[in-house]
Amino acid sequence: MASKQSEAVKRHWAAARLAMTQPDGEGPDDESWGDLTAEPRGVDYIEVEVSGLTAMWLEPKRSVQDRVLLCLHGGGFVSGSIYTHRKMFGHLAKVAGVRALIFDYRLAPTRPHPAPVDDATDVYRWLLDQGIDPPHIGFTGDSSGGGLSITAQLRARERGLPLPAAAMPFSPWTDMEAAGKSYETNKEKDAFFDRETVRMLAASFLGKGGDPRDPLASPLHADLSGLGPIYIQVGEEETLLDDAHMLDEHARKAGVDVRLDVFPGMQHTFQMAAGRAPESDDAIRRMAEWIRPKLGL
Amino acid sequence: MASKQSEAVKRHWAAARLAMTQPDGEGPDDESWGDLTAEPRGVDYIEVEVSGLTAMWLEPKRSVQDRVLLCLHGGGFVSGSIYTHRKMFGHLAKVAGVRALIFDYRLAPTRPHPAPVDDATDVYRWLLDQGIDPPHIGFTGDSSGGGLSITAQLRARERGLPLPAAAMPFSPWTDMEAAGKSYETNKEKDAFFDRETVRMLAASFLGKGGDPRDPLASPLHADLSGLGPIYIQVGEEETLLDDAHMLDEHARKAGVDVRLDVFPGMQHTFQMAAGRAPESDDAIRRMAEWIRPKLGL
Repeated sequence: MASKQSEAVKRHWAAARLAMTQPDGEGPDDESWGDLTAEPRGVDYIEVEVSGLTAMWLEPKRSVQDRVLLCLHGGGFVSGSIYTHRKMFGHLAKVAGVRALIFDYRLAPTRPHPAPVDDATDVYRWLLDQGIDPPHIGFTGDSSGGGLSITAQLRARERGLPLPAAAMPFSPWTDMEAAGKSYETNKEKDAFFDRETVRMLAASFLGKGGDPRDPLASPLHADLSGLGPIYIQVGEEETLLDDAHMLDEHARKAGVDVRLDVFPGMQHTFQMAAGRAPESDDAIRRMAEWIRPKLGL
Repeated sequence: MASKQSEAVKRHWAAARLAMTQPDGEGPDDESWGDLTAEPRGVDYIEVEVSGLTAMWLEPKRSVQDRVLLCLHGGGFVSGSIYTHRKMFGHLAKVAGVRALIFDYRLAPTRPHPAPVDDATDVYRWLLDQGIDPPHIGFTGDSSGGGLSITAQLRARERGLPLPAAAMPFSPWTDMEAAGKSYETNKEKDAFFDRETVRMLAASFLGKGGDPRDPLASPLHADLSGLGPIYIQVGEEETLLDDAHMLDEHARKAGVDVRLDVFPGMQHTFQMAAGRAPESDDAIRRMAEWIRPKLGL
């Protein structure tokens, strides 16, 4: 069912798994995750410093300048960067016809929760300071960044900031307890993530004495009422499949307009194969088409 | 002798070779060559159209704006692009502290010689039209682009344009006859290039009735007198080692100030592992240090 090209995603995760289980072995370096993605072409990359963080504008040619996707990269809160995700979010920005801003939030274990959510909120505030209207901003993120695309809104609201128009978490990590049944049902299908690994990542992210039910860490325990529409994507073969389902259900109960698309045969953050795998390009196109009217385009 | 990190270059060429000899097999796609290179960081990438070609400015932060490296990517005149070489030339520009311009020249077999040399000359003329002084411009290129870094100067001179300050060809392909003895002596060491392959590429590049001794195709047959200083780098294990030696000798005889550095244990265009392999970073640093005073820095 999965395309030949999308198998590269599975191979990437299998190689990362192998490197983890063989600590003496040489794994792919952190940046290699981004090698899954083809260059979107016609997108400019301009680095800027934003409240002490390294950020990067992704500017597709002929994009609308005053509509912005704030992009929150994945990597389990311990890895990933503007460089691993530059191209993938570049595809999304290009198809959506808007600018995107991606940034390096501080990482665990040296910078545990709430550093990433604070950084995301600071960057959002900076965007507003640049004169971008909240209804013209969408949040999006994969994996840990998917969770952040919700929790950063909650933090922004705490600080009295207006909310962005919408959010697009994909393969979101929303449950720091790793309680989903999909950890069992997809155990054999997911090439990297198992419950033990995710709980290790959660412990690293939460830091000493951190609470896995902290609403700013696990948005499943947050009051999501009042949030703008949310579009979730997830791969059918992910152990994190239930993280997506639970977010969908939780947001729906809070009266939020939610859409969830499950992609058959797909692994965690399969969108990283954008420009190569048809499933990834389809997912990117669906996100772009969904967000444009939300941003008034 | 070669670093562990530089072995990735050899693996890349071996995989490309395997894909070529097994036409039904799946090879790495054209863009994957660039996966060898780590992100230089702190470099902006801005695409521009230059005389009908796709070009890209590489702008390191705090670089001198009026000094420019005109970068000619490799790929046997049939492959390579601004995307495969963006990062590698980004490293060079960053260490040199100048801007760089890279562009997609037209490729064989559909656009044989002299299309690439004409395109390079057009882009050089455009640079001059932007107000960049010829003594503030250096040409650089790898493999086929290394040859172009010389032949484009000859074409520019034919057209009455002033010459750039200097050139840095590395792993240059200068001999369309593939006559070098290193095709024999390095036959077992070079992971990709053999005489037959290079002659196929030459035939493709020269087109029907093309002359392998055309001075604008093989600069070994050109009058190089009057050219600015040339700094050549080459890997000791390349079958193209003699292409570098012959260019060195030919330019020297013409009274050109030439330097040639041979890197022990290195493969063709090993500089592509910049940011990962110490030999690549050393090579980049040497080029940067050599070119700066040539550009008046």
